[in-house]
Amino acid sequence: MSDRPAHELAHLGVHGLHTPDPARTVAYFVDLLGMDVVAVDGTATYLRAFGDYEEWSLKVIGSDRAGPEWVSWRTTSAEALERRVCGLELAGHPGRWVPADRGIGPFYEFHDPDGHVFRLYYDTRRYVAPPDKRPAVPTGFQAYPGRGAAVRRLDHVNLLARDVRACREFWETGFGLRTWEIVRLADGVGESAAWMSSSIQGHELIYTQERTSANGRLHHFAYLVDSREEVLRDADVLADAGIRVEAGPSRHTAVQGFYLYTREPGGNRIEIANGGYLMFAPDAEPYVWSYEEYRAKPGWGAALPSDFHIYGTPDVEG
Amino acid sequence: MSDRPAHELAHLGVHGLHTPDPARTVAYFVDLLGMDVVAVDGTATYLRAFGDYEEWSLKVIGSDRAGPEWVSWRTTSAEALERRVCGLELAGHPGRWVPADRGIGPFYEFHDPDGHVFRLYYDTRRYVAPPDKRPAVPTGFQAYPGRGAAVRRLDHVNLLARDVRACREFWETGFGLRTWEIVRLADGVGESAAWMSSSIQGHELIYTQERTSANGRLHHFAYLVDSREEVLRDADVLADAGIRVEAGPSRHTAVQGFYLYTREPGGNRIEIANGGYLMFAPDAEPYVWSYEEYRAKPGWGAALPSDFHIYGTPDVEG
Amino acid sequence: MSDRPAHELAHLGVHGLHTPDPARTVAYFVDLLGMDVVAVDGTATYLRAFGDYEEWSLKVIGSDRAGPEWVSWRTTSAEALERRVCGLELAGHPGRWVPADRGIGPFYEFHDPDGHVFRLYYDTRRYVAPPDKRPAVPTGFQAYPGRGAAVRRLDHVNLLARDVRACREFWETGFGLRTWEIVRLADGVGESAAWMSSSIQGHELIYTQERTSANGRLHHFAYLVDSREEVLRDADVLADAGIRVEAGPSRHTAVQGFYLYTREPGGNRIEIANGGYLMFAPDAEPYVWSYEEYRAKPGWGAALPSDFHIYGTPDVEG
Amino acid sequence: MSDRPAHELAHLGVHGLHTPDPARTVAYFVDLLGMDVVAVDGTATYLRAFGDYEEWSLKVIGSDRAGPEWVSWRTTSAEALERRVCGLELAGHPGRWVPADRGIGPFYEFHDPDGHVFRLYYDTRRYVAPPDKRPAVPTGFQAYPGRGAAVRRLDHVNLLARDVRACREFWETGFGLRTWEIVRLADGVGESAAWMSSSIQGHELIYTQERTSANGRLHHFAYLVDSREEVLRDADVLADAGIRVEAGPSRHTAVQGFYLYTREPGGNRIEIANGGYLMFAPDAEPYVWSYEEYRAKPGWGAALPSDFHIYGTPDVEG
Repeated sequence: MSDRPAHELAHLGVHGLHTPDPARTVAYFVDLLGMDVVAVDGTATYLRAFGDYEEWSLKVIGSDRAGPEWVSWRTTSAEALERRVCGLELAGHPGRWVPADRGIGPFYEFHDPDGHVFRLYYDTRRYVAPPDKRPAVPTGFQAYPGRGAAVRRLDHVNLLARDVRACREFWETGFGLRTWEIVRLADGVGESAAWMSSSIQGHELIYTQERTSANGRLHHFAYLVDSREEVLRDADVLADAGIRVEAGPSRHTAVQGFYLYTREPGGNRIEIANGGYLMFAPDAEPYVWSYEEYRAKPGWGAALPSDFHIYGTPDVEG
Repeated sequence: MSDRPAHELAHLGVHGLHTPDPARTVAYFVDLLGMDVVAVDGTATYLRAFGDYEEWSLKVIGSDRAGPEWVSWRTTSAEALERRVCGLELAGHPGRWVPADRGIGPFYEFHDPDGHVFRLYYDTRRYVAPPDKRPAVPTGFQAYPGRGAAVRRLDHVNLLARDVRACREFWETGFGLRTWEIVRLADGVGESAAWMSSSIQGHELIYTQERTSANGRLHHFAYLVDSREEVLRDADVLADAGIRVEAGPSRHTAVQGFYLYTREPGGNRIEIANGGYLMFAPDAEPYVWSYEEYRAKPGWGAALPSDFHIYGTPDVEG
Repeated sequence: MSDRPAHELAHLGVHGLHTPDPARTVAYFVDLLGMDVVAVDGTATYLRAFGDYEEWSLKVIGSDRAGPEWVSWRTTSAEALERRVCGLELAGHPGRWVPADRGIGPFYEFHDPDGHVFRLYYDTRRYVAPPDKRPAVPTGFQAYPGRGAAVRRLDHVNLLARDVRACREFWETGFGLRTWEIVRLADGVGESAAWMSSSIQGHELIYTQERTSANGRLHHFAYLVDSREEVLRDADVLADAGIRVEAGPSRHTAVQGFYLYTREPGGNRIEIANGGYLMFAPDAEPYVWSYEEYRAKPGWGAALPSDFHIYGTPDVEG
Repeated sequence: MSDRPAHELAHLGVHGLHTPDPARTVAYFVDLLGMDVVAVDGTATYLRAFGDYEEWSLKVIGSDRAGPEWVSWRTTSAEALERRVCGLELAGHPGRWVPADRGIGPFYEFHDPDGHVFRLYYDTRRYVAPPDKRPAVPTGFQAYPGRGAAVRRLDHVNLLARDVRACREFWETGFGLRTWEIVRLADGVGESAAWMSSSIQGHELIYTQERTSANGRLHHFAYLVDSREEVLRDADVLADAGIRVEAGPSRHTAVQGFYLYTREPGGNRIEIANGGYLMFAPDAEPYVWSYEEYRAKPGWGAALPSDFHIYGTPDVEG
């Protein structure tokens, strides 16, 4: 473990999402997920969840099609950021500096092996709630909105990748992410999925098999609520608002998180998530599922719809 | 049991509430409890909860002070209404007919022994959701609002009475309500509380001891949510909106309902409630608590604040 | 409505279950569902759930094959029992009197149109908890067992029937059961399912289409837990004990109950259930689903496995 | 931050508890908290919770009085253990090596400034479930027991200390624990409570004010369940088993954890806990409550009983 640059990534940070229908996408996040608009700048809308300590976390960008703009990590310190940038450049994965955006950044932007855009940053702007949004207990960041699903924060990101193993190794080697679960392909060598984390959380960054020839696509962003009961309730929030429930509520076999999937009006798949284990053992090894064992779906989670592992954004099925 | 006019009251129905601050009271019910405004008529606002099959259930009336206007029961049939009116008149408790209000009624209005105004009615108007409020599952009455506590319907009413026993007997004898629990006063004869129901529900109508010389006062109206987890969540909804939590979330010893008490801005005490037992035995006798046994608070409910059993509306403490 | 013998059936009562593996079946109900053995008599074991006010509710009987022995209703009074017996005999559906069993009964036994055995009774023996099983709050019947799913009581019964409509009309006409939902067959005339109740509960007795040539079969018995969160937890209780989860946890479209299905080791399908609406309107009409509308599964419930609507006990697939 | 020995303590580890009534104390942990006995050795019983990855976590030791034996931390690596031992010795806080106990250890044992015994260790023995205790999903460590509260693992430890600040600084300076909340004494200088963690969890180690002249006492050990709904359910598990509920279920202001307190039959206070925030910001500063602000109990938690902040074990009140 000695070479592992442990704990230099603190947590998933601000992230951007393209949508062909920004008005309805923003309405989905505001009215149904309970997020607040912090700022609007041209076709970009900056949103925050009530549990975000940073001023904003999600940037919705009007575009010709759906898909991720970028995903980011906040580093544990300014020095950690410098070291990781240095590491990328030494490893032959150079990126570029991008100026701060609405008080957060500057960012160092680069690509993972599948071509997804990632950013690293340390400088951020903490949210200060205006008087009418101060929570009763002052250790909270913002009053509980009580609107729709009222998601607390981003929980994890799931990206499609043509070579899951390469992406996993990129983050393990270069950034010290730990991997908690891996699913092998039928060939017993390749990997169809990997769940990784910068902390004791069971998953922050997931890669799953890209089954088309596309690259850099998003499977889903997942936002956290505080109980499984809330996930169940949110199924009514979404279904009764006319949003089709794609899958769930049920529990995933991997990491055992409770899920509910819908697609926001722009087409990006969004999960309402609760749970998933915390991994305390400092010397835990990833659990490696064989193809057959994983397909057997031990436990009690429901079957996923047939295109669940195919559809991503940008949609290339057309 | 042969003389008991069983099952002629179907359920608690539409009810009216006075408030000195109707704008803020309505905002409490709409923004924090998740009810919808159906109509406004002068100082009266008609509200409904998403689980109401009738068009409206709560009438908020601007007034010089807080308190109940009237509580009502819907009868099981038009004939049952006639029989109950006849019964009242024969028993020397005559009332008067009141015209229909926004499609519900006519009502027969009378007083219980403590002077609270009650109404009986059968004719009602069913709610038909407009297209944008239709629920995904058509057996629901209205789409889940996902706003604030999103209460489903009125659960029960608690009225203060100088003579609890007299009120209890009035409803048992005249209307076939069944009593599930009684608390005796320290004298072993009088009663400090009684929980009554027209159905298998553990409580619809509660009387508790009036400790002032006033009469006809409201202790609280209770609105239902679907789980204890929602009651906990609603404590954040209310506290973070600046509403003081008077008591709870915790569980009552009597009927074992889970509770959360606040006062709406006009001063009326409102409960968010979940649970309480269903009583299936057709021959169940009420459980009679001695003063000492009830004071011992068996089980795990929290202590109630000292003025919980004193404050009611209209407030006579001044 | 005037001829309807309303409210003469109080609730589903004691019920019997055949099993070819009584030891493991009893262990399932005791260890995993949290029921208690009250008595053993030859191959029969008498069990109770902690929320039963009667001394026992389930009789497990060793037999050559799985299936229902009988289902029963407790009537609202001794006179109601006499009237219903009289009604059966006048309607040309005579049964026979069966002596009391372990303090409950005598019973009047007869068959529904599909040949399921039913019993009516009024006399019963109330459970008196021994000192070590007394609950903290004395209005409870028994201390919370805290073992496995810890089911509270029987919630509903689902029987397969070749002619659902005939069964439904038998109970409506002869016993005043109310029907809350009906699903039509593709022919628009026949019925594939009906949900009926003797009270405000959304379902007590369900008939669903028998798709084999057998008759008198059980689809499932459902036992109640107090929250959806408990149903989720119980999926772990059962799956981790090696019981295959057949379906759920998820929510049914009809009556909106939250479910989890397993088969007890003898083969009978058992549901852990929570929820389903209460129907307060005294004049509610059943909701009639067209074949197409019901197949579309509005809302968010998961798909059921293909043999869910075929398998019943006795199993005739062999 | 550069000198802070960050992340060298991985998590709270095995811990020991003295009891004057070991048989009943063990029965409490097994029957009511759902733990399993792993081994018995003289008056010591080794117990594990189903979510423990190590073979055992709690050692119950028959003794003349209740109280903590020791609390421990597992380090992130063998080298981290060496460095922390070195650090203690350099800082003038030397301890001693203690041999391994049932496969876990060796331990380096020392005292915090209040005299509580702590241990550090890295070597451990992972639990391998026997076939009948393997969970359905193989990433779990043990099948869900479904017995009593079925606690998942130790969540946090609360120790009484005469000088909270000194204890807090001992762990911050020497071990890199981070402090999330501090409550000031009325003098504005001293501290009455501090919540500390080795990870993103809101609390692992808590110090609260010792109000007697004793030292080295335990306020409580807290064990985790997976939802607030489970905490509510566990109040019935405990109360119905005759265990007095000392406080809760309710939510703490500090760290916002949901709690239920009882005392095991030997007298040690035990919490069933759920929740408390996760702290993702790498640069978060502790929230410092003034005496007045904390006393005002913002939010909705219930009042704690008067001796809640006085009683600890060993009990010195006599």
